[in-house]
Amino acid sequence: MTRKIVLSGIRPTGRIHLGNYWGAVKNWVDLQDAYDCRYFIADLHALTTSYAETSSIRSATMDGVVDLLASGIDPEKSVLFLQSQVPQHAELAVVFGMITPLGWLERVPTYKEQIEQLREKDLGTYGFLGYPVLMTADITLYRANFVPVGKDQESHLEISREIVRRFNGFYGEVFPEPQALYTPSPKVPGIDARKMSKSYDNTIALSASADEVKTAVMAMVTDPKRARRADPGDPDTCNLYPFHQLYSPEDEQKTVAEECRTAARGCVDCKKHLIRNMNTALEPVRERRATLEAKPELVREVLEAGNEKARKLASETMESVSSAMGLYVSGGKP
Amino acid sequence: MTRKIVLSGIRPTGRIHLGNYWGAVKNWVDLQDAYDCRYFIADLHALTTSYAETSSIRSATMDGVVDLLASGIDPEKSVLFLQSQVPQHAELAVVFGMITPLGWLERVPTYKEQIEQLREKDLGTYGFLGYPVLMTADITLYRANFVPVGKDQESHLEISREIVRRFNGFYGEVFPEPQALYTPSPKVPGIDARKMSKSYDNTIALSASADEVKTAVMAMVTDPKRARRADPGDPDTCNLYPFHQLYSPEDEQKTVAEECRTAARGCVDCKKHLIRNMNTALEPVRERRATLEAKPELVREVLEAGNEKARKLASETMESVSSAMGLYVSGGKP
Repeated sequence: MTRKIVLSGIRPTGRIHLGNYWGAVKNWVDLQDAYDCRYFIADLHALTTSYAETSSIRSATMDGVVDLLASGIDPEKSVLFLQSQVPQHAELAVVFGMITPLGWLERVPTYKEQIEQLREKDLGTYGFLGYPVLMTADITLYRANFVPVGKDQESHLEISREIVRRFNGFYGEVFPEPQALYTPSPKVPGIDARKMSKSYDNTIALSASADEVKTAVMAMVTDPKRARRADPGDPDTCNLYPFHQLYSPEDEQKTVAEECRTAARGCVDCKKHLIRNMNTALEPVRERRATLEAKPELVREVLEAGNEKARKLASETMESVSSAMGLYVSGGKP
Repeated sequence: MTRKIVLSGIRPTGRIHLGNYWGAVKNWVDLQDAYDCRYFIADLHALTTSYAETSSIRSATMDGVVDLLASGIDPEKSVLFLQSQVPQHAELAVVFGMITPLGWLERVPTYKEQIEQLREKDLGTYGFLGYPVLMTADITLYRANFVPVGKDQESHLEISREIVRRFNGFYGEVFPEPQALYTPSPKVPGIDARKMSKSYDNTIALSASADEVKTAVMAMVTDPKRARRADPGDPDTCNLYPFHQLYSPEDEQKTVAEECRTAARGCVDCKKHLIRNMNTALEPVRERRATLEAKPELVREVLEAGNEKARKLASETMESVSSAMGLYVSGGKP
């Protein structure tokens, strides 16, 4: 039986942080055994919002590859590649652009939302409007059946399905309609209690050193109503507790919660406990990271091999596209 | 001294007609000795207006290549290629899209004009709006200095210069600003006296047989005020005379004009005269065409060799682009 195909990508806009890890990368790792997975660093997508300041894209790209490998993405199981190194992403995006009504793009809910949220950037560009077209090309180029998403992101795929339906309607059934694959997306607050996000500058990097983790956790906001050591606290409104839920064994989670509610344990002790558990979990990733960072040529080779595999898959798809559309097919009949 | 680079393309939306020949192809042939020329069949551009009906693009593409070779485009002098076979066109278009403000595209004068003119087609697509972005990629991918245009088309290049200036402003001086190269664009009316154009269905194909030329010319509208054979005519309002100016020797042009004004010659005689001269001029093209059509593999080989040359030039440019933008460069340093 052929396995279903999963596709997902991450933008190289900074160091991969724990929000990215729990919301995406961990799921990627877990999906590898049940699906044929294609994972990529979306450097072209990074340009949609960062075109005016591109100086960190290259280093963030290589850091991202190292983070993914260190987290357990296995290039023997999955195709790991860089978007810009597979020209078919741009080719298929140009083709999809030809059949995509402007109105569809203008009505994508995240379009106006993001323009509002990122007011400091000028996002009134052709490329930013066309973000869903490029995304649809990313997905369909590998004939992906599934895209892993959190519960609130299902609507992101609707536009891709619409474009696929329109393409198939014009030229025949070339692509499957991509479906959402719901994957766990636990709550990962930033150190300031808002959602962990690069744009809030409240992140802890997956590659943070033991000291960086310590500094970050010690700086975390806890239950704001627990003003003094002797006040009882509430784990459900504390910013620390979600991290215990991710990094501490279940029995310890219970103890921590109970001792918080009874004021048997203070926030500083609770933080030290968390730091210990986080560093225990992150240490193996850091070690694998260090090994990989010592061999940049190896990382590059792994990436280039993945790019080559992706180009092969993508070129097969583009042959079907040209054929279905009645365009010239290289090596075909005149 | 390095020669300046010229770039131009033609869409495969039907048989190349005499309007295309005199307005573009003939100039292309003439420019080959003074410039390094890159000429292409713009099949991706054909999709901007013909995405809903693509069945004739492939045959029009191969016919176009044959017409160009038969007209004197010399693959030893010029790079002749097919746009869709050089993926860097799409790659650079995606990059340019990231920096191109939507407002610039919405304000291109031809944008709203064409939507009006081609009302029977749904041109409210992302790809149609982005036509100037793809065009700019076509030009700059070969670092073209000049684009041959008729006197009224200078404004078409303004948007490309703006995009180039913005790119160079963000990332450094990568591209020269393309300039118009004014080339002759004599009047070529269609058989109904409007401008010869595929959309008016009034064309004479460059590859028309002697009989087709005869039928077309015999059907031509002449001076509408010359109702009877004995009435004197006016070559300046006659639809035939511009063709004499293109196909008859100067002394014959004078005779024709004078005998029209004095009613010494009737329209039928005048047409027969023109048919003879047109067929004399078109016969060598038809012969070269027949030779080429007998060897489709050869035509294909010539095209594929051109595609390969174009890809090489284009990939050098894309390396400069990635480098300037700080993106990953394949084979470069990690």
